[in-house]
Amino acid sequence: MQFAGPLALRSGASISGYTLAYETYGTLNAERSNAVLVCHALNASHHVAGVYEGQARSEGWWDNMVGPGKPLDTDRFFVIGVNNLGSCFGSTGPMHVNPANGRVYGADFPVVTVEDWVDAQAALLDALGIRTLAAVMGGSLGGMQALSWTLQYPDRVRHAVVVASAPNLTAENIAFNEVARRAIVTDPDFHGGHFYEYGVIPKRGLRIARMIGHITYLSDDVMNAKFGRILRSAVEGEVAGLDYRYSTQDIEFQIESYLRYQGDKFSEYFDANTYLLITRALDYFDPARHHGGQLSTALAQATAKFLLVSFKTDWRFSPARSREIVKALLDNRRNVSYAEIDAPHGHDAFLLDDVRYMGVVRSYFERVAKEFQ
Amino acid sequence: MQFAGPLALRSGASISGYTLAYETYGTLNAERSNAVLVCHALNASHHVAGVYEGQARSEGWWDNMVGPGKPLDTDRFFVIGVNNLGSCFGSTGPMHVNPANGRVYGADFPVVTVEDWVDAQAALLDALGIRTLAAVMGGSLGGMQALSWTLQYPDRVRHAVVVASAPNLTAENIAFNEVARRAIVTDPDFHGGHFYEYGVIPKRGLRIARMIGHITYLSDDVMNAKFGRILRSAVEGEVAGLDYRYSTQDIEFQIESYLRYQGDKFSEYFDANTYLLITRALDYFDPARHHGGQLSTALAQATAKFLLVSFKTDWRFSPARSREIVKALLDNRRNVSYAEIDAPHGHDAFLLDDVRYMGVVRSYFERVAKEFQ
Repeated sequence: MQFAGPLALRSGASISGYTLAYETYGTLNAERSNAVLVCHALNASHHVAGVYEGQARSEGWWDNMVGPGKPLDTDRFFVIGVNNLGSCFGSTGPMHVNPANGRVYGADFPVVTVEDWVDAQAALLDALGIRTLAAVMGGSLGGMQALSWTLQYPDRVRHAVVVASAPNLTAENIAFNEVARRAIVTDPDFHGGHFYEYGVIPKRGLRIARMIGHITYLSDDVMNAKFGRILRSAVEGEVAGLDYRYSTQDIEFQIESYLRYQGDKFSEYFDANTYLLITRALDYFDPARHHGGQLSTALAQATAKFLLVSFKTDWRFSPARSREIVKALLDNRRNVSYAEIDAPHGHDAFLLDDVRYMGVVRSYFERVAKEFQ
Repeated sequence: MQFAGPLALRSGASISGYTLAYETYGTLNAERSNAVLVCHALNASHHVAGVYEGQARSEGWWDNMVGPGKPLDTDRFFVIGVNNLGSCFGSTGPMHVNPANGRVYGADFPVVTVEDWVDAQAALLDALGIRTLAAVMGGSLGGMQALSWTLQYPDRVRHAVVVASAPNLTAENIAFNEVARRAIVTDPDFHGGHFYEYGVIPKRGLRIARMIGHITYLSDDVMNAKFGRILRSAVEGEVAGLDYRYSTQDIEFQIESYLRYQGDKFSEYFDANTYLLITRALDYFDPARHHGGQLSTALAQATAKFLLVSFKTDWRFSPARSREIVKALLDNRRNVSYAEIDAPHGHDAFLLDDVRYMGVVRSYFERVAKEFQ
């Protein structure tokens, strides 16, 4: 959908003439009261659920969660997925032309924040004629958007489902983002963010960024269970599967093969400037910042009911971070449900099937549905 | 010290005409029974203790541990530090000329393992006329060498002090190494490891490698305590210290400033091929490998007495990994002391002062000293 704008951004800049790519699933009821907005994290889009016609492998990124009869049941809810501004899956981003000067934005794309994305999502809802959300939901960075919705538009959201998220990044979280950004920015093919004009892509940097990301998405345990110290030669049936090749550059271990594959794949489709923008939005998110670091004070504005879910083996956004949000909401006597799931998969668990996790979300949305049925 | 060789390596290759840089501290007693070998980790050398004349800032990397009156007391012990083969601080490494063909080794330097280093260290002891070590000691990768000594030369080592180490790398450990290696290898200035001939250094890759390393050396807690979400502007007294600059490439957070500084500094002095070699030696170390993965079986060969030390917040080589070694030694009814130190500093703790840690090591070496006094 096209927007004339201008949309005022937290940086002081604004953006005009932008597009937001979105998809919807299910039917908006007559009262327009059953809409659920699903917010995406770093590497995802508005394509939350379902498959595109004739493309069997085009499954949405949260297709196990969203659909007919699924935990977020599209037979009951009208679900909206939006691609965020600055992303690279259809909405206006760094690879598009800046209408102000006719040049590709590149590194000049304005820095966007979680709060800016929420503003843009609100403008989309206005255009769709939806005043109030039955719920806003997201995992990881998507959870930050859901939380921010309850602070920026408290009267437009009745429930927030915040999964595997955090009230802000730790120094370690920022550190990982920074290493990934440096890998991209120092890639000679980055050309200060204007690589489009040179017909190249900073793939080396994107690969490194993705490899680092993948390590932080998985738990140590699941990595050991899945890859351990298994050698590639063992998988390929070579040399008794127990001998090293004694090479510093060949792939020796299965985990290396996995990471290189993930890095290569990612560098083929993800935009380098988008990576910088989205990781920066993560770094910046910190609702307590202008409240003297007091999250309880910051969350006093929220009136929604909440479900928070965390995963025990998630060391990126650990359960302790979700508990900070829970505590701050309880300090304000808000209605909060909280589930800590003992899944082995680390941060990735929020995208995976786990009967307890799916069960908790399903129950919660059954409760939400009762409010308008 | 020059060695004619050839030294047979685990890869099947061998190395001839090599130099090992070493330093000694204290005095070898008449019985030659008070020698302690200190093994180094990735970014260290034979310069374990003391300062070089006229260079006040040339303190050895374990100067808090080793010296007159210190936990490893050089008034009692004759301490030896050796720079490992393939390193870049004086011993023969990739930046040196291969006598076989007159060309700089570069990427052709043979892949070396922990076991190879121990063999080279044993050859040095032979040359120094030392048959038996009172103790071998090391932290992290240095601890792996200490452990390997007890397996390769059980009759030449009476005690092993293994600090913040592990019986092998986990998949996550290997993953971090692999990302660092890819950053180096894909740096256009790497030139397949023969960058010396081009008069360039793959500094971009080295910077990224070091930044990743630093994240894994520190605990999440100490990072938060030291840097948290403090902005650089706050430190510089700019713009109220609370405003973001809204830039993806400028330094916003103190943690970014710290990591960039560490990366820049490292890229000025560390050799890229050495980084590959040493991380690979880490990946390969796995004494249980040829014993069906049974560490207890592998450690049956060790006859030394052991002190193991781990640090609670070390998530790189967690206490659980040290406990694996302790258990395997106890399964063999070996004499083992074990201390788990509740220090906040993560893996880095093994290099830092902590009264409990220093006390444990001091007491242990007092006991070792009694055996020959």
